[in-house]
Amino acid sequence: MSEPILDVPTLDVIAIGNAIVDVMAPAEDADIERLGLAKGGMTLVDADRARALYDAMGPAREISGGSAANTLAGLAALGAKCAFIGQVADDQFGQVFAHDIRSGGIDFATPARGEEPPTAQCLIFVTPDGQRTMNTFLGASQFLPAAALDETVIASAAVLYLEGYLWDPEEPRRAMRKAIAAARAAGRKVAFTLSDAFVISRHGDDFRALIEAGQIDILFANEHELAALTGKDDFHDGIAALADKVPTLVVTRSENGAHAVAAGEHAHVPAEPIEKVVDTTGAGDLFAAGFLFGHVRGRPLAECLKLGAVCAAEIISHYGARPEADLAELVAGR
Amino acid sequence: MSEPILDVPTLDVIAIGNAIVDVMAPAEDADIERLGLAKGGMTLVDADRARALYDAMGPAREISGGSAANTLAGLAALGAKCAFIGQVADDQFGQVFAHDIRSGGIDFATPARGEEPPTAQCLIFVTPDGQRTMNTFLGASQFLPAAALDETVIASAAVLYLEGYLWDPEEPRRAMRKAIAAARAAGRKVAFTLSDAFVISRHGDDFRALIEAGQIDILFANEHELAALTGKDDFHDGIAALADKVPTLVVTRSENGAHAVAAGEHAHVPAEPIEKVVDTTGAGDLFAAGFLFGHVRGRPLAECLKLGAVCAAEIISHYGARPEADLAELVAGR
Repeated sequence: MSEPILDVPTLDVIAIGNAIVDVMAPAEDADIERLGLAKGGMTLVDADRARALYDAMGPAREISGGSAANTLAGLAALGAKCAFIGQVADDQFGQVFAHDIRSGGIDFATPARGEEPPTAQCLIFVTPDGQRTMNTFLGASQFLPAAALDETVIASAAVLYLEGYLWDPEEPRRAMRKAIAAARAAGRKVAFTLSDAFVISRHGDDFRALIEAGQIDILFANEHELAALTGKDDFHDGIAALADKVPTLVVTRSENGAHAVAAGEHAHVPAEPIEKVVDTTGAGDLFAAGFLFGHVRGRPLAECLKLGAVCAAEIISHYGARPEADLAELVAGR
Repeated sequence: MSEPILDVPTLDVIAIGNAIVDVMAPAEDADIERLGLAKGGMTLVDADRARALYDAMGPAREISGGSAANTLAGLAALGAKCAFIGQVADDQFGQVFAHDIRSGGIDFATPARGEEPPTAQCLIFVTPDGQRTMNTFLGASQFLPAAALDETVIASAAVLYLEGYLWDPEEPRRAMRKAIAAARAAGRKVAFTLSDAFVISRHGDDFRALIEAGQIDILFANEHELAALTGKDDFHDGIAALADKVPTLVVTRSENGAHAVAAGEHAHVPAEPIEKVVDTTGAGDLFAAGFLFGHVRGRPLAECLKLGAVCAAEIISHYGARPEADLAELVAGR
């Protein structure tokens, strides 16, 4: 049987992720302790806990978020053609999310679901060290139905990008499995970000199975997620355990830069120097944006890492996980 | 007849104002022109125009606003005891507004009104020069009923602070007239900000009548509003025209600092130097906060102006009209 004749992709990246509005406020370390929060991590919360945490939060600001959506916002700002799939409710936060992603130039066609549960919200406490502690109320986001996927659209993107956070709720997980199949059938690449250690603790077996089956072409992890997935405490052992199984492996190490391994090549970049870390929300998301932009433009591995580092540096220098500076200008000539 | 025996006020400032969520996005001068906006001003828009402008706006962020509410947020951050009266709808933006004002330590007891019209929104386009162009959809805010006022609470505050913007819709105007009467009957001071030239063009006669009748103790204006109200193009002529009629007159002049006249004393401060004007939204509101804080603490006129200038400088150095820095710390020793 001959290879199927593939159309040239019309989209660079299509992503499936949580459709979340971030509710962000500064907080002291003492607040984090008093409220019993897991500093630096992401915790899923129910409506009651979300209400209690919001009541305890100082004056906040609302900025569209969601891990994969943040990555697309970065990619679109860099000049990539993107589409997003995610579930909002028919409420004001849903309108905010849809407005912000569309006005960033990203296709977003998933219809709102109804008023209850409301659009997902992530209550983010930002401590003076710039660390963010996230508490996510998934709301409508967890009900993204597999039926919301258009396999033709999935097949039209060079890369399908999936967010590990969304592996937790059942319906979106089914949707993502369907999307992986559609992308692979069309000869496209599947990129996956592990998102958080808690996701790996619940779904590590799924992820390892996907990797063993060769379903993941580009894997994004930070060093903690790498250790959790591979069971290797040593960073280089962790990389070695995955390097042969994933065509492109990208591992971020915060202020220690990032590594990538692809086709036997190992590249590393230091973190970009910045004046002050204001808020680390979205650092990994924007790193992925820069890397993927380089990838879809066929840039060498080290340059992809460099683009990731520049985008991550921009996002942690201000509040919120959506870019403020002109990313295309920032990376010009890099 | 003897003077009524007055209780010592338990609140420093109670304010009546629009309960608004600001929806802010960067924009280019070309966008302002293309959309037919009045750069630097505030325009009232209906629901359709608000929708059209929002669709034309780039990715935005939502931060609680409203002129008098911003002033209270500053006052509370400085350590004053405050209460706010304003009308939100029973929707997510209403929850955001109520959360932000209460979590700033401000009493806010006005019940939400229902779902329609929605909570007021101000679509703010911020150009690279830091200027803000505001388009306000008043929504629920214009239906603040006089019945929402508790005259005992009004009487418990040393200063009643009123926002000129809210003089435009009929119901809140009635509520404010009732509040002025309650405050004066209790021997409290009435402070009023003129807000914008369009307000004066519509209601200048009302304002002049209030001033002539000795109903306004502290009047805030910028130089353009001063000219509009007095009909004097020359700044000093404008001040002279009002100085005898208002016990405390405060006039701001952007980068040229601010003037105050009270009991024959004339004071002036230069603007505080800042590195970069990011967003002038709330500059006048926070100037009023600093000035009023000094006033209720019995500080000399020049010191009140200085506190105003410091607070205004903080607010224009970042996005949004609610303070980010610790204002109490900023003004310590000033």
